[in-house]
Amino acid sequence: MISVEEARDRILVGLRPTPVELVALAEAWGRVTAAPVIARLSQPPADVCAMDGYALRAADGTGGTVLRVIGAAPAGHPFDGQVGPGEAVRLFTGSVVPAGADTILLQEDATAGEGTVRVNETVRPARHIRRAGQDFSSGEAVLPAGRRLTARDIGLAAAANHPWLTVHRCPRIAILATGDEIALPGEPVPPGGVVSSNSHALAAMVRAAGGTPIVLPVAADSPDAIAAVADAIAGVDMLVTTGGASVGDHDLVIPGLQARGLTLDFWKIAMRPGKPLLFGALGATPVLGLPGNPVSALICAILFLLPALARLSGLPATPPPTAAARLATPLAANDRRAGYLRATLATDSAGRLVATPIASQDSAMLRRLAQADALIVRPPQASALPEGSDVPVIRLDALGV
Amino acid sequence: MISVEEARDRILVGLRPTPVELVALAEAWGRVTAAPVIARLSQPPADVCAMDGYALRAADGTGGTVLRVIGAAPAGHPFDGQVGPGEAVRLFTGSVVPAGADTILLQEDATAGEGTVRVNETVRPARHIRRAGQDFSSGEAVLPAGRRLTARDIGLAAAANHPWLTVHRCPRIAILATGDEIALPGEPVPPGGVVSSNSHALAAMVRAAGGTPIVLPVAADSPDAIAAVADAIAGVDMLVTTGGASVGDHDLVIPGLQARGLTLDFWKIAMRPGKPLLFGALGATPVLGLPGNPVSALICAILFLLPALARLSGLPATPPPTAAARLATPLAANDRRAGYLRATLATDSAGRLVATPIASQDSAMLRRLAQADALIVRPPQASALPEGSDVPVIRLDALGV
Repeated sequence: MISVEEARDRILVGLRPTPVELVALAEAWGRVTAAPVIARLSQPPADVCAMDGYALRAADGTGGTVLRVIGAAPAGHPFDGQVGPGEAVRLFTGSVVPAGADTILLQEDATAGEGTVRVNETVRPARHIRRAGQDFSSGEAVLPAGRRLTARDIGLAAAANHPWLTVHRCPRIAILATGDEIALPGEPVPPGGVVSSNSHALAAMVRAAGGTPIVLPVAADSPDAIAAVADAIAGVDMLVTTGGASVGDHDLVIPGLQARGLTLDFWKIAMRPGKPLLFGALGATPVLGLPGNPVSALICAILFLLPALARLSGLPATPPPTAAARLATPLAANDRRAGYLRATLATDSAGRLVATPIASQDSAMLRRLAQADALIVRPPQASALPEGSDVPVIRLDALGV
Repeated sequence: MISVEEARDRILVGLRPTPVELVALAEAWGRVTAAPVIARLSQPPADVCAMDGYALRAADGTGGTVLRVIGAAPAGHPFDGQVGPGEAVRLFTGSVVPAGADTILLQEDATAGEGTVRVNETVRPARHIRRAGQDFSSGEAVLPAGRRLTARDIGLAAAANHPWLTVHRCPRIAILATGDEIALPGEPVPPGGVVSSNSHALAAMVRAAGGTPIVLPVAADSPDAIAAVADAIAGVDMLVTTGGASVGDHDLVIPGLQARGLTLDFWKIAMRPGKPLLFGALGATPVLGLPGNPVSALICAILFLLPALARLSGLPATPPPTAAARLATPLAANDRRAGYLRATLATDSAGRLVATPIASQDSAMLRRLAQADALIVRPPQASALPEGSDVPVIRLDALGV
């Protein structure tokens, strides 16, 4: 058995970001940039007015002065002329400041007359002007490569005048469930059978992480059926299997895929739930074999598949982020397997997170996992902890899974 | 001017969740349930074996006993007969426990012979059996209405045998930018013009919140152009406008839409950035008028549009969640307008969040907003705060925007 950290390193070391593609700006939310986004213009493009008011020469802006209004320049309609002594031009938020003017008189500090404006409050020089390029300048990188685009980033790329963005392709993840006992939701359930849940939960998790799931037909428990899968994975970035990877007589994934050339890296890790985790490669395709048990499968997917998806997507591949939470109940000492305890979260009066482990940690309890807000991380050989101790938690809500 | 809280209440009070639709389980991730999901079967469907081993009568399970193996029952292939005295049946994880047996001998505590198995460790009664319905029972609600479906929930709905789910429709949000100075990304930019960023950022925000954005063509600064928009919003759940809603001569959204029957609820709120926020209705369609300034528009969208989208989606409509963070720098006292300061976040050695306000809080600095991790919330009239104080922050990463 190897550690969770070593397993993750061995999975990630061979993965490379997917190749690039162009997507329309309007489709780019959540995608990962494959190149920096370089501003194609400056923002603001020229010195612009930050408020509604009048452009004038600061020297003319003494309280009580009456200036001649020689024009108006709504945003998008710059004033062509020059502002001379004793003159002003009506401006609005976003209007280009006309030549000759060097400050702004706010409209609330002015009284408009017939072709004139009276200065009620003496202006200061260079006020209420946003300088050309103050937000960004043409040629600057406004967004780096390797960033998952937020809504704000989409706005910034638009402002930098990019209708198309270069992003990494969505990683295509084939998902294979195995087992004679597996029925698809809505189809007849055989005696003693269960309805396939792992494939669909994993497909949703792949979507949540920005990938494209490809759910393969369920493979029967025969080496031939499993070996045939090798033909179904052309063009995918990773094959994820669930079930059939532990040591029982009826676990056939390994021999079935080995018959088609699977090379194995490891197949056991020191964690609970989830010991039988398999990693290898089928030709050039990485293969991640998750346990068949739904809770184990999903927790292993959070710990290993999500970082793999990040790496494939062009993002830094880090362990799932943890937050600090206080224990609402004591915890027993841990054995040599890292533990991931399902827990609910609350916030105490001081705004701190409080984690309460769910009573039943049985790894077949899918409903309990769905109700959990977080996983409490217990390192191997961790000491017993009293109530109130700080523990690291993986927030499931933050992962969107 | 009304407060942020009153504005939000007045926006939300009239909004109703969208009607229902059926979606395939495989398309339901991120959707909001419109009805509880009722289990159509029990899980496990019968008493099943939690490990690989042998089913037997506990009375036969004394160390040293040799039992006759009368059959094997892989998962999905239940054993039809009865386990009698002196007999055992080979089982695997997930196998149905056959009639007559009442406990499990683990395979690691057994030695298999020729049609026999030897008990090496005395068994205890009722061990390693998952009881029928232990996860959930047929007829139980495994998921409530009004829940945004996680990947785990999708697995649970699958396990409960639902190929289709009843969800709320994705709210359709029409987005209108106004202004003669606005160009679309990649199109020719007029003199003094800027490239439209708000519409695209807002569309991405609508997507991030599970809605469907409909970006309308940019309306020129004329009452007729804006009034024509009224014809373009048939069937949408909300119209969001940006720009043109403050008090300048060239702000034409209000008169333009009023000409087509807009009724106004309010149009100014006590916040910074973002004072000119408009809310009303055009016929039965709620209208949210955001400021034109990109930073103000996006922050107002976080504070008002996201809760509105939640309500329309069938979720509880709450203010954006806040977390507690420590200030890395002092803050000045606040005036009567609630403030939302752009800030970066870090984690200190104790695992606590630390917020550093970004130096320039100019509301035209879109790049700074994109670089921010959070908004520090400053209530009206808040006192000055020294470095190290706790402040509430809205985490932008947690909102996916």
